[in-house]
Amino acid sequence: VKSVAAAVVPGHRRDVTTFDATPRTTVRRLADRASYDVDLVHSILDEGLLAHVALNDDAHGPVVLPMTFARIDDRLYLHGALANRVLRGVADGQPVCITVTLLDALVMSRAAFHHSMNYRCVVVFGRGVRVTDRDEMLAASAALVERMEAGRSAQARVPTDDELRRTLIVRVPLVEVSAKVRTGPPIEEPDDLSLPVWGGIVPMSLVRGDPVLDGLP
Amino acid sequence: VKSVAAAVVPGHRRDVTTFDATPRTTVRRLADRASYDVDLVHSILDEGLLAHVALNDDAHGPVVLPMTFARIDDRLYLHGALANRVLRGVADGQPVCITVTLLDALVMSRAAFHHSMNYRCVVVFGRGVRVTDRDEMLAASAALVERMEAGRSAQARVPTDDELRRTLIVRVPLVEVSAKVRTGPPIEEPDDLSLPVWGGIVPMSLVRGDPVLDGLP
Repeated sequence: VKSVAAAVVPGHRRDVTTFDATPRTTVRRLADRASYDVDLVHSILDEGLLAHVALNDDAHGPVVLPMTFARIDDRLYLHGALANRVLRGVADGQPVCITVTLLDALVMSRAAFHHSMNYRCVVVFGRGVRVTDRDEMLAASAALVERMEAGRSAQARVPTDDELRRTLIVRVPLVEVSAKVRTGPPIEEPDDLSLPVWGGIVPMSLVRGDPVLDGLP
Repeated sequence: VKSVAAAVVPGHRRDVTTFDATPRTTVRRLADRASYDVDLVHSILDEGLLAHVALNDDAHGPVVLPMTFARIDDRLYLHGALANRVLRGVADGQPVCITVTLLDALVMSRAAFHHSMNYRCVVVFGRGVRVTDRDEMLAASAALVERMEAGRSAQARVPTDDELRRTLIVRVPLVEVSAKVRTGPPIEEPDDLSLPVWGGIVPMSLVRGDPVLDGLP
């Protein structure tokens, strides 16, 4: 296992293929479902459209909110309004946990106890930094648009300086990262196989519908 | 606005129609998207299949993980293995934040800055209690199965006492709760309407596929 530190420098280093496990990314339960594979982590992040971002607010305790995000190389970019309290906390460098989950299937066992879900999930621990460099802000903005529709970042109007001032973009390095994946059929107890109930999975997929134009000229 | 306290007693009180806003559920940003309507909150929770559950771990800081859950009346039930570290913390009564997010559409503006997402989201603050009463555990187990397929809780084998001992079910009362919803087309700047790029939404939906049987006898 090579150090991931090298992967944090700008540009994606293809020779770094796994993240180092740390005390908080070492998956204890069902460790066979855990992975630190960089390509797997990237594929989950790139497919996910929403991240759930958690921090511990001094006044309110733990808070978790959904946010849009994009990945560029080994960096995650969160995006929101200047007034977003949680994102401001992340921008201030408070410890953050960011989780992206893809639901792949409902797992239907013959036993209530063995019902489960197939999923792919990435958990990122770290601290964020507010992005103030204009070029980096524009790159993150383009990445956020591009993942909503391939090619669109070249079509949509680029943010003005005033819009950039009203935008909070936070960079979180992908260093302390783990993935967890469940696949396959349900677990069944041998005695349950004769019960008159089916076992298997119900595939779930997030489907894009046809665009609905706003009808403006 | 009536107090929600009455809604916490067993049985759903239909006369309580809104949650009271508290300092941490008062939505500051884009407050017009906030709602404390009980029926709206319930509808979002009942449609969501995964919750993102956050707590602050003494050793590791904020942690957020996806979990299955079910609602019964004014109670949320989280479900997992005894060894699940985060769920154990919730069962121990540590402050928890639980967020359920439904993605409804990608919002495609002519300007990169105004790209957004339509979503419905519920955020619950509170403290959990481990459920140890056998009848309540069975009711929660049935609710968890039932939401995966209507009618299935009457077909799947009921948990044995040994299975219940290996299951951690945590009840979180729905008291400090808010919803946030974005709908509709993108915001556009008047000057952008002449640009050669379309504006509108791409509807997103989580679709159930046809069951894939496991082929066991």
